Amino acid sequence: MEILKGNAVVGQSGGPTAAINATLSGVIRGALRAKKDGHIGTLYGMRNGIEGFLREDFVDLTERFEGGRELDILEQTPAAALGSCRKKMRSPADDPETYSHIFEILKKYDIRYFFYIGGNDSMDTVSKLSMYAKEHDYEIRVVGVPKTIDNDLMATDHTPGFGSAAKYVATTVKEIMRDVSVYTLNAVTIVEVMGRDAGWLTASAALPVISGGRAPDLIYLPERTFDLDKFIESIKRALSEHPDVLVVISEGIRFADGTYAGASKSTVDAFGHVQLSGAGKALEWIVKERIGCKVRSIELNLPQRAAGHLLSRTDIEESVGVGKGAVNVALRGRTGVMMTIDRLESDGYCSSVGCADISSIANAVRGVPDEYITASADGITDAGIAYLAPLIEGEISVVYEKGMPKHIVI
Amino acid sequence: MEILKGNAVVGQSGGPTAAINATLSGVIRGALRAKKDGHIGTLYGMRNGIEGFLREDFVDLTERFEGGRELDILEQTPAAALGSCRKKMRSPADDPETYSHIFEILKKYDIRYFFYIGGNDSMDTVSKLSMYAKEHDYEIRVVGVPKTIDNDLMATDHTPGFGSAAKYVATTVKEIMRDVSVYTLNAVTIVEVMGRDAGWLTASAALPVISGGRAPDLIYLPERTFDLDKFIESIKRALSEHPDVLVVISEGIRFADGTYAGASKSTVDAFGHVQLSGAGKALEWIVKERIGCKVRSIELNLPQRAAGHLLSRTDIEESVGVGKGAVNVALRGRTGVMMTIDRLESDGYCSSVGCADISSIANAVRGVPDEYITASADGITDAGIAYLAPLIEGEISVVYEKGMPKHIVI
Repeated sequence: MEILKGNAVVGQSGGPTAAINATLSGVIRGALRAKKDGHIGTLYGMRNGIEGFLREDFVDLTERFEGGRELDILEQTPAAALGSCRKKMRSPADDPETYSHIFEILKKYDIRYFFYIGGNDSMDTVSKLSMYAKEHDYEIRVVGVPKTIDNDLMATDHTPGFGSAAKYVATTVKEIMRDVSVYTLNAVTIVEVMGRDAGWLTASAALPVISGGRAPDLIYLPERTFDLDKFIESIKRALSEHPDVLVVISEGIRFADGTYAGASKSTVDAFGHVQLSGAGKALEWIVKERIGCKVRSIELNLPQRAAGHLLSRTDIEESVGVGKGAVNVALRGRTGVMMTIDRLESDGYCSSVGCADISSIANAVRGVPDEYITASADGITDAGIAYLAPLIEGEISVVYEKGMPKHIVI
Repeated sequence: MEILKGNAVVGQSGGPTAAINATLSGVIRGALRAKKDGHIGTLYGMRNGIEGFLREDFVDLTERFEGGRELDILEQTPAAALGSCRKKMRSPADDPETYSHIFEILKKYDIRYFFYIGGNDSMDTVSKLSMYAKEHDYEIRVVGVPKTIDNDLMATDHTPGFGSAAKYVATTVKEIMRDVSVYTLNAVTIVEVMGRDAGWLTASAALPVISGGRAPDLIYLPERTFDLDKFIESIKRALSEHPDVLVVISEGIRFADGTYAGASKSTVDAFGHVQLSGAGKALEWIVKERIGCKVRSIELNLPQRAAGHLLSRTDIEESVGVGKGAVNVALRGRTGVMMTIDRLESDGYCSSVGCADISSIANAVRGVPDEYITASADGITDAGIAYLAPLIEGEISVVYEKGMPKHIVI
């Protein structure tokens, strides 16, 4: 097969993760190799995803990272170094101007390889662009590379970025558990973890149990209906056993009627404005009223997706791997695919990089399966822990500068 | 001088830090050495501070850590491994029973060395016990070893535990800055840092500027009156310059009338109960109303004092050093003192361990001095950054177990 020659472009889209630049680095590593082999000319980076592409806001990444310099620093820099956007593309039928504009730019820069690193919306963009190219006979390889701390994409065993976020959650929960255990007074601590529709990241709070720690007393995922009375009873029972009760909840837990727990304790200010507080704070107030003991809520917030100082080596290696792999499968002629990580049957943990037809992936969400959630709907099973544990394994020796992790600016 | 022979006891008190066990390790290292030299017999650890002492709830630390084994793991374990308490001792005149009980126990176990690791209240305990011993002719060395992330103790250049918390704050703020900079839409992010009366930890959020990052747009310390209108104007001005505005506030900022900013936006629930939200959330709601852009608040919460996975080498080495030093000065006959860290005049950063008479220290708070705060009261001066920077320098190679930092249980 003759290899398609031309330039390439890469973009990042959607919410930040600590590993999204490791994948960018993988694409750059792949492109530098392909340039050496004479297959790819320039790898352009689009700033702020497809928005920057439409403005022709490009940076020459083959030049910026010539010889692979500083790619190790790029791999430890959290949050899209090229900038990001949140844009759900309309269909070509609804928005023909945007598509013809995109393809004019592709022709102008002789771009034959299009790599898009992102979550569900980004995979939808990849799907639409690859189909449009086929229909309009423009030869190009469009490849999606997944990233999301939510771990909710189909077709892949897990998503790049999830392992590092899970390591941060597991480590932080283990540390919080130490903190709250120093006193002898009854106290309930509620930790709120990201993940509106999928509870994977929340589930990783169960991991301290395999590392000399204890599991949180209660873990609530959005995959199960949240029952307030049962919750209060469970806390009372836990308090009767030990004073330091730790609860971990997903931001997205909902009652039987579909309303978010975070909306269950709406308050109004002096002007009558309704103020929303988040699930953790709402439950803190409810526990305080109904049980009366000391209660604290902790929202892990942005740090859980941006903690470049605490990376899973497994995650970073795989994140680089899917980036490199994207260039490889594109050179071999694949288009309209998303890169995947496949878990291999083996004694220890082992994975390989693959790809899957994107039309089967985009716009579907993969939640935590039943066999990973305890029957009481407030904990994680051994099978769930066995799935999660290898993904946080290994550390990266982060480069520091003046006491803080070094980051790169592109 | 003849060295006083007998047993020793050590306790931990007050809020957790990531370095409080490094100091405990220092005391154990000192005691193991003194045992070898025939000066100290057994080093007892009291559980939950003076509360456990009164229950005679002791653990033999010389046996537990014989030969120094596992002390490296103890040094990376956050939050008091012996447990803690919050107890402000009354004076001997007001509570003679407790004092005579304490001294009965000291005699029963032949304890001649009393080491207490803690903050202001703990130093007050050290002061009271050492004076009582002198008045009642019981020969004992009572030595306080400071710990607090607040860095607000007198007589010492800085406190053990502060450097690691400051490193966590600086690193996390640097990472949050990366996260919020990926989009092009106007957004204000408010980070709330611990420190009710002293702004040292909040000030450390300025450090990313020396590590290839940028300083937060605005930093507010409790040492200055917080002016809401000026705050809103400053945010508007920052937004006119760039879309990603980052504000860092101390939890303890107050208005001119003395009320906490966190109480400025009290809300009531459906039952009329007033709900307090914290300073960050209150300001988030106010900015949303008065400016109307996207606003997010992030409370760094317990992780900033418990993050054993991100330790300042400078802090841990000094924390071990003051622990060892406490044993040394006690052996040399000092009592009623608190260990100090003294910054030496030198080209680079250099410190030594000293001690100071405790009566001059207890119950006084050391705030951030004027020369470290900008004239506009919303930033940190170069002098402030020069003071803070060395304290977060250096990293500890943390031992991991199944992807999470290894901790010890005593």
